[in-house]
Amino acid sequence: MTVTAPLYRDAAAPVDARVRDLLSRMTLREKAGQLNQRMYGWDAYRRTPDGRFELTDALYAETERFAGLGALYGLLRADAWSGVDHAGGSGAADGAELAHLVQRHVVDSSRLGIPALFVEEVPHGHMALDGTVLPVNLAVGATWDPGLYERAAAHAAAELRARGGHVALVSALDIARDPRWGRTEECFGEDPYLAARLTEALVRGMQGEPGPDGTFAADKAPVVLKHFAGQGATVGGRNSAESELGPRELHEIHLPAARAGVRAGAAAVMAAYNEVDGMPCSGNRALLTGLLRERWGFDGLVMADGLAVDRLARVTGDPVSAGALALHAGVDLSLWDEGFTHLEEAVERGLVSEQALDEAVARVLRLKFRLGLFEQPCSAGPFPDPAAGRALSTALARAAVTLLHNDQRVLPLPGTSRIAVLGPHADTVAHQLGDYTAPQRPGTGTSVLDALRRTGADVRHARGCALTGDDLSGIPEAIAAAAACDAAVLVLGGSSARTPDTEFDANGAARTVVSEMTCGEGVDLAGLRLGGAQHALLDAVTATGTPTVVVLVQGRSHAVPEAAERAAALLTAWYPGPWGGEAIAEVLLGRAEPAGRLPVSVPRSAGHLPVHYNHKDTEYGGYVDDSAEALYSFGHGLSYTTFAYGPPRLSGRTVEVDVTNTGERQGRTVAQLYLRRIITPVWPRTLELRGFQALDLAPGECRTAVFPLGAEQLAQVGADLETAVLPGTVEIRVAESARRALTAVPVGLRVGQSFTAPDETPL
Amino acid sequence: MTVTAPLYRDAAAPVDARVRDLLSRMTLREKAGQLNQRMYGWDAYRRTPDGRFELTDALYAETERFAGLGALYGLLRADAWSGVDHAGGSGAADGAELAHLVQRHVVDSSRLGIPALFVEEVPHGHMALDGTVLPVNLAVGATWDPGLYERAAAHAAAELRARGGHVALVSALDIARDPRWGRTEECFGEDPYLAARLTEALVRGMQGEPGPDGTFAADKAPVVLKHFAGQGATVGGRNSAESELGPRELHEIHLPAARAGVRAGAAAVMAAYNEVDGMPCSGNRALLTGLLRERWGFDGLVMADGLAVDRLARVTGDPVSAGALALHAGVDLSLWDEGFTHLEEAVERGLVSEQALDEAVARVLRLKFRLGLFEQPCSAGPFPDPAAGRALSTALARAAVTLLHNDQRVLPLPGTSRIAVLGPHADTVAHQLGDYTAPQRPGTGTSVLDALRRTGADVRHARGCALTGDDLSGIPEAIAAAAACDAAVLVLGGSSARTPDTEFDANGAARTVVSEMTCGEGVDLAGLRLGGAQHALLDAVTATGTPTVVVLVQGRSHAVPEAAERAAALLTAWYPGPWGGEAIAEVLLGRAEPAGRLPVSVPRSAGHLPVHYNHKDTEYGGYVDDSAEALYSFGHGLSYTTFAYGPPRLSGRTVEVDVTNTGERQGRTVAQLYLRRIITPVWPRTLELRGFQALDLAPGECRTAVFPLGAEQLAQVGADLETAVLPGTVEIRVAESARRALTAVPVGLRVGQSFTAPDETPL
Repeated sequence: MTVTAPLYRDAAAPVDARVRDLLSRMTLREKAGQLNQRMYGWDAYRRTPDGRFELTDALYAETERFAGLGALYGLLRADAWSGVDHAGGSGAADGAELAHLVQRHVVDSSRLGIPALFVEEVPHGHMALDGTVLPVNLAVGATWDPGLYERAAAHAAAELRARGGHVALVSALDIARDPRWGRTEECFGEDPYLAARLTEALVRGMQGEPGPDGTFAADKAPVVLKHFAGQGATVGGRNSAESELGPRELHEIHLPAARAGVRAGAAAVMAAYNEVDGMPCSGNRALLTGLLRERWGFDGLVMADGLAVDRLARVTGDPVSAGALALHAGVDLSLWDEGFTHLEEAVERGLVSEQALDEAVARVLRLKFRLGLFEQPCSAGPFPDPAAGRALSTALARAAVTLLHNDQRVLPLPGTSRIAVLGPHADTVAHQLGDYTAPQRPGTGTSVLDALRRTGADVRHARGCALTGDDLSGIPEAIAAAAACDAAVLVLGGSSARTPDTEFDANGAARTVVSEMTCGEGVDLAGLRLGGAQHALLDAVTATGTPTVVVLVQGRSHAVPEAAERAAALLTAWYPGPWGGEAIAEVLLGRAEPAGRLPVSVPRSAGHLPVHYNHKDTEYGGYVDDSAEALYSFGHGLSYTTFAYGPPRLSGRTVEVDVTNTGERQGRTVAQLYLRRIITPVWPRTLELRGFQALDLAPGECRTAVFPLGAEQLAQVGADLETAVLPGTVEIRVAESARRALTAVPVGLRVGQSFTAPDETPL
Repeated sequence: MTVTAPLYRDAAAPVDARVRDLLSRMTLREKAGQLNQRMYGWDAYRRTPDGRFELTDALYAETERFAGLGALYGLLRADAWSGVDHAGGSGAADGAELAHLVQRHVVDSSRLGIPALFVEEVPHGHMALDGTVLPVNLAVGATWDPGLYERAAAHAAAELRARGGHVALVSALDIARDPRWGRTEECFGEDPYLAARLTEALVRGMQGEPGPDGTFAADKAPVVLKHFAGQGATVGGRNSAESELGPRELHEIHLPAARAGVRAGAAAVMAAYNEVDGMPCSGNRALLTGLLRERWGFDGLVMADGLAVDRLARVTGDPVSAGALALHAGVDLSLWDEGFTHLEEAVERGLVSEQALDEAVARVLRLKFRLGLFEQPCSAGPFPDPAAGRALSTALARAAVTLLHNDQRVLPLPGTSRIAVLGPHADTVAHQLGDYTAPQRPGTGTSVLDALRRTGADVRHARGCALTGDDLSGIPEAIAAAAACDAAVLVLGGSSARTPDTEFDANGAARTVVSEMTCGEGVDLAGLRLGGAQHALLDAVTATGTPTVVVLVQGRSHAVPEAAERAAALLTAWYPGPWGGEAIAEVLLGRAEPAGRLPVSVPRSAGHLPVHYNHKDTEYGGYVDDSAEALYSFGHGLSYTTFAYGPPRLSGRTVEVDVTNTGERQGRTVAQLYLRRIITPVWPRTLELRGFQALDLAPGECRTAVFPLGAEQLAQVGADLETAVLPGTVEIRVAESARRALTAVPVGLRVGQSFTAPDETPL
């Protein structure tokens, strides 16, 4: 008798056939097991006194319970919440060994030898010990440079896979509509077009070009795009609160990044915590199945956010029916929930069909086959060159530094000047990093103070105050330093640095905030002012008369209008990552050009919200006590030189604009193409970004920016909310910011005459 | 040959037959004329030197142009915008004479003798000279007393008709969701149920029980309910800006008052300025025809807001197509627009059907027949007793005064105490009145100072400062007065008083704000703080140590959290109308009980918005720098006594609760019934108000509050957004405020078991 290996073991067979074969062999319990991702990865192992890893009883119990393991979250995660640090966690040198150990056990526990997915946080680099930290997404948004970001994303994916991780959880889809929200730092900005281009870059960079039958290369990682959908518009900027959005607002603003990510081939999306107009995303079949799978044709995986399935028990009455609701809606893989552990019971009780279960299991299995896990469950390549990672992170930081205001032309600072480097952000790398970040090895990174000192400048330093609180005791020292110098660099802002004394919710969001944490998941603010002492420090330092450059390091827009009034110059670097100080110093000294452009409109105060450039074109709004306009416009960012933009020309399916460097330095401008709809069946926005192109120009140099102009740029959401339409007339404007576009010379276009049918349907 | 009078002249014929007959005789031009309401009424007449009225060339031109006149706006209006005052306008004595003069001319100008509708502003009383000013809607909301409001509305309608006016423009449908909005004062509050009950009362009071064939009594006025829909939720509280709301939010929060008003028989609604999720209300056929007429069965008139049709030219390209779009959508009668003057051309060019035009004309004519204008075009009864009007206005004011905080038990003030009456609102009746108000005759009304003086109390007065600005020069005098007294009453707040130096937009909204105007149409604020000097005055007066009662007179919630901290007591009276000072003084002295309850949640700052009690039940929101909860809860209001609420009991289709006065004074409590949905197909709100009942109880007295509990209370918007459903389980809680309801003992109810079908379908 010949023993034939089952079809699913045949690496040469088509993935779909392997999935079907494997599925047909599985018990209901094994199937349900594949949809669970219940453990915190750091509970699966511990370090023995002799420095090796060993598995825990918790892992044994879990693989026993699920007859294997569907997925494991955060095996490599290290941060204040998980409590993992260099003493107990795995680093670049031994991450793959740990992953191997766990995977071996999982495969052995599974009757059919099904490996687990190792799912890791990669919001801005792999959030693990020795992972290269990148600037946060808001800083990436400020670069307007998808190509650079794609390379950085590729590096992060390679690090992840080298450590034995498989799947990257990446922030991408949340649109920054309210800076009170502590997760604003995870957004690419307020604009759907910019976010869509960066989401595409992220997917391409991490996943690469898929191989035959959708296989991933060994240094590429399937992504889970977070979050689907509308989470950037929860009311009051309150995390996980409701979004009251209508379907058109959702389609126009909150869905384009997801649509672009799906088109680019994203392997998975994560259903968001929030509800939209009464329907929680994790239980929303219209969203997860009707729109995502049926209309968009998405064939990947839908993962729930942490404990989001269990939250549905609030309306279903118990976790079993909550799990059934989520599965029926379209969630395939749960995260930490009890609800999905009862799927066997839910099917048996008829709360959800076994077919729905099978479809979800098939999607999980398909991803495992695409990753080649059945052939090489424990493969891991070499850790990529850390120097390359550092270079990419620094390049992103450099491209993100945005010069908002430079009235007194104190910048760039002469190399010979005595510089007072002041403020609570001047010398603390930890505050440059953003949320989720793993503990850094001592000496990693460069603060602004470090970097300026290394240039040989005559530098004096005083911290002045803390990020939070009203302790003014350090201010006199800062005043003295400023008074003794030719210029002051005052580094202010916020921080998402979690410390061991932070308390966390079960999903890792911060619950009580101590220390200097003012931003990050769970850290929403009612006010956008900095800590009281920071404002006092700003007042005191500028009052010395020493020209003061204020640098904001932050995960959201803070409202510091007095910086614009009193400082000689104002920059924002967002959270620029470990080497952000280097990037900032280079810009301050003119060794790098200030290349960043705002990915968000900066409001005057929290009372002015919402503030975006792409609001509806109503001329009747406004406030009598203050301007309703942004303090700084979306797209804004000064250079050390100046540029002149010619009028736009239509040329076939492109728009061309001549751009000239009219100053005396080399410089980079980001030409931005905006659409202004004139005749339209629905009320239009004032402007809509539909293209951008960076140009590096020498003094006096003129080049032509060329933008594609097709149905993708011109289409709008139809009245049926299901199809894209190309009606009416539009104006095309090209300018250096949204505000400048309002007064830029337009070129008009009758869309209906030029485009008879959409090249593609964005809905 | 016998000449037979045409059918439409036959008062005994059915209205519909008369309409059809008249319509069949009209030219296209005459039809289009009926849909126009282009003139400002005050341009139709002037006073001659000998004190009589004469008609203007402008009116002659208008009736010539339209071969008659459909409707005339504001013939009796008098205010800073119209420039009409006692010198030139019509008062109680001669309003009917003016109306007669104009109507005679209109009828004579019309080949078929069609009279005009005289349409007047009645947002809180008839806004004409000698009209009785009532407290603004926000104060009416604070009374929780539909019966009292119905009587006051009836009085206002009688005044209007006695002056020759016909149709009352009334604020009712806007729900106060953002206090930055300057029209918050025109809302009944944040809650759809409370607004629905007050809208019903308004319709019943003004229109009365219709006679045969829908006729109105001679002292009753058909209402135009303003505004339909969603205007209370424009982003940023910015007037006429976009509402991003989804359909469920619209149905649950913004439509119930309109639904109730339509059910109560409202003759007309006004389409709102704003758009909802991309569709401007004035051009929104789904809203005005699909929902309002087809699903709700509304057979009345739809009027556009002022110049709202012309605004549609922004997307249609010109006023002709804007008019066609609005007519097709369901607008019958325009206000001031150019767009509707071209309807003849629009029909001829095929932009809109003549049938649509005919239907709109029929609705205008029908209202004229229902008013009996063809029989008595100029009828006007006697002006109702002003004393009755004053009594009703004062009663509403008294019922609206709301005691928010009374820590030091300084209230009620002993009659023997020396009282310092301070603040910019202490002695200015004009600031008590609210927007739209006509000039008052000297001596009308009572300020807080007037009223306290009349009690014989030993009163000292100092204004202290102005409502706006930072002038602190008057504060020392206020300090001295406070220091010399046993108690201080500090009256602070805002004002919607328009002065001749205010500049206005073409629709009467304030454009530039001078003087002390901080509220009203067009007066939106980014901040909710009072003027800087008012805060300084509060600090200075409370610092004297004299127990200080702060009274806020305001058209929106201002954020004055320090009043809660430093003042002995805090009250809000909203804009209580001319005799508000009397009502406030009565409450301060304990001659009236503080009966008001908050119709809105009071936020801690503009940065906390939105703040409502009926947000979605998400436990994950909140701010790390401050509580996300309201400073004072919806429904809150203290009494001078205390009450105990027993547990709720289900009894058939009612809920019963025993309420006991546990204090030592007579008092009024408003028992509030809240629903908390437990098992539900959509994400629920934390609480939903579904009943309220005021109880006057003697010390020690116990009575049972009985609330109906039927499908109307229990139904929710179905997943299809088109039908009402009765699913799941709910908890019923009865308490003195929304916040107290959160911890009140609930009684549970499985809705499906008790109610098998809706008694009615609210959608």
